[in-house]
Amino acid sequence: METKTVYYIGGFLDADGCINAQIIRRNDYHLKFQIRVSVTFFQKTKHHWCLEKLKKECVYGSVRKRKDGMSEYAIVGNDAVKNILKKLEPAVRVKRPQLKRVLHIIHELPKAKDPQTFLTLCESVDHFEQLNFSKGRKVTSETVRSTFEQLDMLNVPVETVGTTGSDDISSD
Amino acid sequence: METKTVYYIGGFLDADGCINAQIIRRNDYHLKFQIRVSVTFFQKTKHHWCLEKLKKECVYGSVRKRKDGMSEYAIVGNDAVKNILKKLEPAVRVKRPQLKRVLHIIHELPKAKDPQTFLTLCESVDHFEQLNFSKGRKVTSETVRSTFEQLDMLNVPVETVGTTGSDDISSD
Repeated sequence: METKTVYYIGGFLDADGCINAQIIRRNDYHLKFQIRVSVTFFQKTKHHWCLEKLKKECVYGSVRKRKDGMSEYAIVGNDAVKNILKKLEPAVRVKRPQLKRVLHIIHELPKAKDPQTFLTLCESVDHFEQLNFSKGRKVTSETVRSTFEQLDMLNVPVETVGTTGSDDISSD
Repeated sequence: METKTVYYIGGFLDADGCINAQIIRRNDYHLKFQIRVSVTFFQKTKHHWCLEKLKKECVYGSVRKRKDGMSEYAIVGNDAVKNILKKLEPAVRVKRPQLKRVLHIIHELPKAKDPQTFLTLCESVDHFEQLNFSKGRKVTSETVRSTFEQLDMLNVPVETVGTTGSDDISSD
């Protein structure tokens, strides 16, 4: 990606985009939940073309027209999000805390195969509620903990729990 | 301004900024109205620092905290707006129609010393209502025309009227 494009998209993302991580319920998953990371851009559908252009430049993701007159360009999935955020990293200012935290989560996810380690990552995901001013998340690390407790999934020896603490993530 | 900065600010402006022209009532002005051009950026006051940084980069304008939790960085005045838009011109995509129209208005303003020519420029300003989805402008070219008619200011020979038509401005 050209430097000009990196900085244009970085500015666009800072002003009106969203770097996010969410916990999604997945009954068919071994750990019953999934951490989903995403990068999203918004524009009035009148300017739908500009999101299509961003998509062409970022390669990943898909653009859709919502019913409220807005269009949305969303990149989801660990590999795609990691790839695009690594490219945008030098340009992003305002949403740098979210960018760093998502990259950290993607980095730690492969190690989070046991409930306790996964739960620690979910606690990191909780921070996005405040970072993105997105009040009222339905599924938080507390939901995950409660489910794990009900299913007696947290009774594992302490030594198998990975180290995925999020203390090293700046959230200025 | 560094190329990276130009493109960052271009993206930021496209996503959540505003390039505008408005007609302001000025009883003490010879023509009773002023055309005011502006470039504005917005952010939650939590991220006030990022607007201060933009200001440092753009040099012109001022940043203020609004009472609704938002901060606003506004550049007003013909010279400042012209200077900054000329710099951002290669980077701006979505708001290119507004950028071109404001530059055109600034270019034509010195010629608009008579009521008829000024009125034609005001008609160009009217387009910003649609371009910026800013419904319900109080002062339009119709207000100006009506005032000029009341004051019998439009009775000038046709040959003194300048050519400030806006047909050459793309508004795609």
